[in-house]
Amino acid sequence: MSAAARDPPLAQEDLLLAAAYVYDAQYNRNIPFETSPQAVRLYYLYNHWTMQAATYFFIFVDLFLAVFEDPAVYPLPFLATSLVEVLCLLVFFGRLVHFAKVTPRNVFWKDTKNICIMIAILVTLIDLIIYGALKISNVNSIRWSRFLRPIFLINFAESRQIRRVFRSIRNTLPEITYVFLLFMFSVLMFSLMALKLFGDRNLRTVEGSPYFTNYLEIVFDLYVLVTTANSPDVMMPAFDFSWWYSLFFITYVVINTYLFMSVFLAVVYNNYRKHLKNEIRKLAYMKRHKMVEAFNILKVKEGTEFVVKEAQWKQLVKLVAPDISTSHRELLLRVSDEEQKGYVDKKAFVRLADLLNIQVIAMRIQTHPLEHWMPHVYNSAVSLFIRSMVQHKGFVWTYDVIILINAVFIALDEENPLISYAEWVFLSLYIIEILLKVYTYEPRAFFAKTQFWNWFDTSIIIAALVATILNTSLKSASQYNSQQVLDIVFILRVLRLIRIVDSIQRFRVIMNTLINIVPTMLTFGGLALVVYYMFAIIGMELFQGKIQFFSRNSTAHHALECGNPALKDSLFARAKYCKNNFNDITSSFGPIQSPPKSMERRPTPLTSMRSKWRKKCDLSSLHFLSVLVLNFILLANGFALVTHQAAKLYFIAFHVVVVIMIINILIAFILEAFFVEYSLEKSEVETAIERKIQELGVGIQEEELRDGKLIDNMETNENDLGGEEITKKKSKGLMFKIASKRYRTVDALLQRMFEAEILPEDDGPSVDEILNLSPADVYPKNPTFDSAA
Amino acid sequence: MSAAARDPPLAQEDLLLAAAYVYDAQYNRNIPFETSPQAVRLYYLYNHWTMQAATYFFIFVDLFLAVFEDPAVYPLPFLATSLVEVLCLLVFFGRLVHFAKVTPRNVFWKDTKNICIMIAILVTLIDLIIYGALKISNVNSIRWSRFLRPIFLINFAESRQIRRVFRSIRNTLPEITYVFLLFMFSVLMFSLMALKLFGDRNLRTVEGSPYFTNYLEIVFDLYVLVTTANSPDVMMPAFDFSWWYSLFFITYVVINTYLFMSVFLAVVYNNYRKHLKNEIRKLAYMKRHKMVEAFNILKVKEGTEFVVKEAQWKQLVKLVAPDISTSHRELLLRVSDEEQKGYVDKKAFVRLADLLNIQVIAMRIQTHPLEHWMPHVYNSAVSLFIRSMVQHKGFVWTYDVIILINAVFIALDEENPLISYAEWVFLSLYIIEILLKVYTYEPRAFFAKTQFWNWFDTSIIIAALVATILNTSLKSASQYNSQQVLDIVFILRVLRLIRIVDSIQRFRVIMNTLINIVPTMLTFGGLALVVYYMFAIIGMELFQGKIQFFSRNSTAHHALECGNPALKDSLFARAKYCKNNFNDITSSFGPIQSPPKSMERRPTPLTSMRSKWRKKCDLSSLHFLSVLVLNFILLANGFALVTHQAAKLYFIAFHVVVVIMIINILIAFILEAFFVEYSLEKSEVETAIERKIQELGVGIQEEELRDGKLIDNMETNENDLGGEEITKKKSKGLMFKIASKRYRTVDALLQRMFEAEILPEDDGPSVDEILNLSPADVYPKNPTFDSAA
Repeated sequence: MSAAARDPPLAQEDLLLAAAYVYDAQYNRNIPFETSPQAVRLYYLYNHWTMQAATYFFIFVDLFLAVFEDPAVYPLPFLATSLVEVLCLLVFFGRLVHFAKVTPRNVFWKDTKNICIMIAILVTLIDLIIYGALKISNVNSIRWSRFLRPIFLINFAESRQIRRVFRSIRNTLPEITYVFLLFMFSVLMFSLMALKLFGDRNLRTVEGSPYFTNYLEIVFDLYVLVTTANSPDVMMPAFDFSWWYSLFFITYVVINTYLFMSVFLAVVYNNYRKHLKNEIRKLAYMKRHKMVEAFNILKVKEGTEFVVKEAQWKQLVKLVAPDISTSHRELLLRVSDEEQKGYVDKKAFVRLADLLNIQVIAMRIQTHPLEHWMPHVYNSAVSLFIRSMVQHKGFVWTYDVIILINAVFIALDEENPLISYAEWVFLSLYIIEILLKVYTYEPRAFFAKTQFWNWFDTSIIIAALVATILNTSLKSASQYNSQQVLDIVFILRVLRLIRIVDSIQRFRVIMNTLINIVPTMLTFGGLALVVYYMFAIIGMELFQGKIQFFSRNSTAHHALECGNPALKDSLFARAKYCKNNFNDITSSFGPIQSPPKSMERRPTPLTSMRSKWRKKCDLSSLHFLSVLVLNFILLANGFALVTHQAAKLYFIAFHVVVVIMIINILIAFILEAFFVEYSLEKSEVETAIERKIQELGVGIQEEELRDGKLIDNMETNENDLGGEEITKKKSKGLMFKIASKRYRTVDALLQRMFEAEILPEDDGPSVDEILNLSPADVYPKNPTFDSAA
Repeated sequence: MSAAARDPPLAQEDLLLAAAYVYDAQYNRNIPFETSPQAVRLYYLYNHWTMQAATYFFIFVDLFLAVFEDPAVYPLPFLATSLVEVLCLLVFFGRLVHFAKVTPRNVFWKDTKNICIMIAILVTLIDLIIYGALKISNVNSIRWSRFLRPIFLINFAESRQIRRVFRSIRNTLPEITYVFLLFMFSVLMFSLMALKLFGDRNLRTVEGSPYFTNYLEIVFDLYVLVTTANSPDVMMPAFDFSWWYSLFFITYVVINTYLFMSVFLAVVYNNYRKHLKNEIRKLAYMKRHKMVEAFNILKVKEGTEFVVKEAQWKQLVKLVAPDISTSHRELLLRVSDEEQKGYVDKKAFVRLADLLNIQVIAMRIQTHPLEHWMPHVYNSAVSLFIRSMVQHKGFVWTYDVIILINAVFIALDEENPLISYAEWVFLSLYIIEILLKVYTYEPRAFFAKTQFWNWFDTSIIIAALVATILNTSLKSASQYNSQQVLDIVFILRVLRLIRIVDSIQRFRVIMNTLINIVPTMLTFGGLALVVYYMFAIIGMELFQGKIQFFSRNSTAHHALECGNPALKDSLFARAKYCKNNFNDITSSFGPIQSPPKSMERRPTPLTSMRSKWRKKCDLSSLHFLSVLVLNFILLANGFALVTHQAAKLYFIAFHVVVVIMIINILIAFILEAFFVEYSLEKSEVETAIERKIQELGVGIQEEELRDGKLIDNMETNENDLGGEEITKKKSKGLMFKIASKRYRTVDALLQRMFEAEILPEDDGPSVDEILNLSPADVYPKNPTFDSAA
């Protein structure tokens, strides 16, 4: 993979600017502030993927400590967890110091996120010391600083996306607050009406308690109705009394669920869009600013204009992107210096960061290794027949039919020996398919990193093969089906069927859009993790031990009411929701006493192992993950468990944060991603490169690509060919191609669109102006027909 | 109200074109095809509001027939309902004939909606005859044509908006279908996985039935999980078994609920936008086309260019808008003929429809009637003090505090006599407030039709006053609180509190946007009515009698299982959902046997009346409205009642149509409305009129308006002042003002934006081209930064 092909951890323009300083320093013209070759090395080190991976590793270690801390799933001594935590804090501190080294001092100290991290480290240390001291003197306190842990995930420089979502939430807050107050006003009004309409009727709920007599309870019930979680239970008593009252609930649902929830989405989406555009405008201006600065460092006077000489340009590119091939560099030079004048002018120079960011794939047209080793066999009649057969459409259709038959077989009963043999047949058919394809197409092309489906197929098949063999050998060796292995085998078998989607053109398009969304979805994964983690920590401190889970056959006291007399005869207990609790799983409730009867039909050794495994599995539920699940569940229906006021507030807060804010931002993001997909086009810079590639005759046709005859460029500096003429490469089979047009994110696309609107001679506003740009400026004074709707 | 001020039922440009023909005909230059003064009168008659109201009345009569038809809520003999239905059909046919008279023949027969109506009338008649004949010979059949009734609601020309939503749904279908297939594929895959993972475990659901063993049942359960209706019940057995399996459900919910549902919204929204723009472009071009045609009829040669003479222009405007004042007409002429050359050129003429559509309010600055009648008293020191007091901000704040105190009193117990007296105090306080305001501000200004909140306040207070007096007199006369009257009093009291929202600026803005959305929300009301009606009719035929409702104390057999042995011990019956049924309410179940004990604490006459009333009310539930409620409920949680396969398909169809299509279009519409609000601006034509108003010195300041010193123009043709100079009016206190900028709908705004982009000299494409414009052409070739996101 070439440097230009991957998304750089640090923006290209930052690297270019730093490199320009370095280059300048090397030639001793002047030594700029705090910049030296060592600084660039530190820069590289800071952005090296291992350093980033290490940072993330320690962040997750820190987050996962909750599993081992009291109340623990796997209890570890306080000393152990605190040592690990101190280690994590040290790593964070080291990372921060490293960052300070590569950043100008004033920039570093102005940045809130650095201050945030420092305060979080300090506070955590203080909390650790206090907690430890109290523990030694046997006083139990609360490790409240655990609540701060997600701060590290948010604030480390790599999590730019998460931070932007947080900023977006913060910016949306004022507008959301007003709509929320209006919404709450509406809920309060309806509650008052409900109190007057139903309070005097002496109606009873299904559980027999008075219906709609306490104002605050009505408010909560109606709030929950907005989530539709307690519908229709909450309306049934009124509905049974007279159906006219259903009009009340219909009005309520229309206004508060449909209207207000849509308004929330509209406000969130509109703000998301506005702030996204503003951030992107800032980014685009900053980039332009840095490129102009780099140009000013390197420029020399040539005739009437300032330019950068070809030699300096090459040195700079080598410094910034050391691992791209010479031919690729030559190509870029040709694009930047169209008329081969020996220098690059300002207009072309400021595009350099974009040029380096474009994925240009250099490919060698290669022959199949088998053709290379034994051309006679590979080109024999039989071989040619096989190859043309594999390339035929019928081959794909045949395998689609096989997949469908396989789906039916999967659904059939496993116990039938014929069916389990069929599994082997299918597995071999799939393996044969892959082997045939590799035989026909060039293996390196087949496994190129753009070939998502080939990778997917192969890994699924190999994993299924390994798991099935493992399972069979386990079975024959110990007469025992490992349940975990079996589960994995089942899942892999079903996943295999996904491949059929790829055969249908229309589905492939939608799938590609969805796959493009995945990287940014991970941002929301991070966001969700942060929010759920915080709620889980709070929930654990507030509600642990309130509800307990008993196995089905438990004879323990209070088993039927989840260990809480208040839940006796409640629908909650009757519907067996007891496992939806906030306990750490190892707390005082009775161990699982016996597996359900149905589990006992297999031989004894199996049963005992299985019951042991089940016991372990139940005991080992990671606490906060189960809370995460719980919250998913609560969101949908579990509000019923709420019995006291603090809990109600907790759940309303959860609903506001998760549903009104985060889910809406997620939806806004998906909407945006789809709309951008609809208006996707080639950028001007890409077009320039493509034109140059075509001019030089080193382009490649899409059809050839589809035949899989191409490979990624594996060329390194070793086979660097110096200033050789690019066109010569053609005879060597080296070709260029712009990589997939679909890799772009929403941000990248918007940034490109905005950049297209900055004039080439425009240097943009000053840095201070850029940082103070407000979203209100983004909106055009006169919206056009196309932009308005 | 002047004609120019209300939204004309027929577009201004159509009227103008017709009037141009008429004018032309009067002067005998040529008689155009099918146009005569009588034709214009027919045109007016067709578009008269009484004719439209009558059409809607009969449409709703036709729809409500379901209440009286077998299975009926109030059974009526078949002869009666069928006669009413025939009457309705006759009215529809007459309306259609009338429409044919005012439409060119070829246009009429090309229009699908006319054909639709004719076929529906014919089919309904045939069905009526067959059903009647079978009924006479005592064979029971199904009145299947009832399913077609909503067609009349959709297809009559007034329901343009509903038709557009339907067209939008139809156009979105292909894209939605592919996403839906992919979504179903995902559900099927997860179901297969669930079958393999849980099918062999012998798990049991809460109700004790096998868990996840039948593939089709799993598919249905997981489909329902997408609506979150059966969460967490559907996952509890797996979750109890091992928490690891919750990962399966989390993955499922993330992919299918969050991801796919957002994709549905994105696809629907994108298509809605695209088709909306296309329709609006068509409308704009058609308008331009008609205006050019009208111009061509009236044009005369003046120097080098074709123009319309001032006299003809005035005649035309008089013909088209007979009820606008002369001064208003003069103003429009001044705008059209800027330089007072005595004629209107083509560019100005094509704007005429827009000019007539702008709400220009002509106002006379009027003195308070009291000042007129008794100036001494009205301008006395006491009166002045009162008036300045009322205008003071403190007055508003005082009443805000009063409202808050009132809210507390409403929440308190009604039985306390002190509280019920307090109600009188509050009522009088509110009446005093209104009287004071009317005393201070000009009454006609106070009750101007733009003063929404004044109208709202006054009507609520008067209604509350009437209801409270009625209730008190009923109570003192018969010792009996009429429950209905009391309910109304309660609701009115609570509604009074809404006023507090109007005092807070930020809330007022949001409220205004919401109020602006209301008219188009009614379109969705119509749409929902159509869809629910169809589903109700089908549901009634399929499921009537399957579930029965028994009152709480019923001793009837099967009372506990809703009359259906299959529901015995089900959570459905236990949660008392039995009233969620598809029966007509008069069917065989036992009458309510005794009111709950709690109702008996009042004196005997009251109890007997109340129980009688309750009985009537329970018996009289309009069947299909209860189904409508039911569907609301089902959507949320009632999927549990589904016991056989046909019902499952019915509910999946309902979910797809209502949630995936209609709710998403509703959300798309609300999003669009909010975005348009953000980019609202004055149009070019409005600016021209405003400039002219200012130039002529007949403008009015916003501040004066806020003081409520202005009234709507009540001037008619009687005090027509001929060609008098407009500026003279000023001395008479007549002023002009462009009406509220916020009245506009999304459509109107988009149309205006698009028109601004058509060049004045552009006549637009031909009619055929206009009708064949495709949405794909709307997207710009090069999206700009602002339009993309």
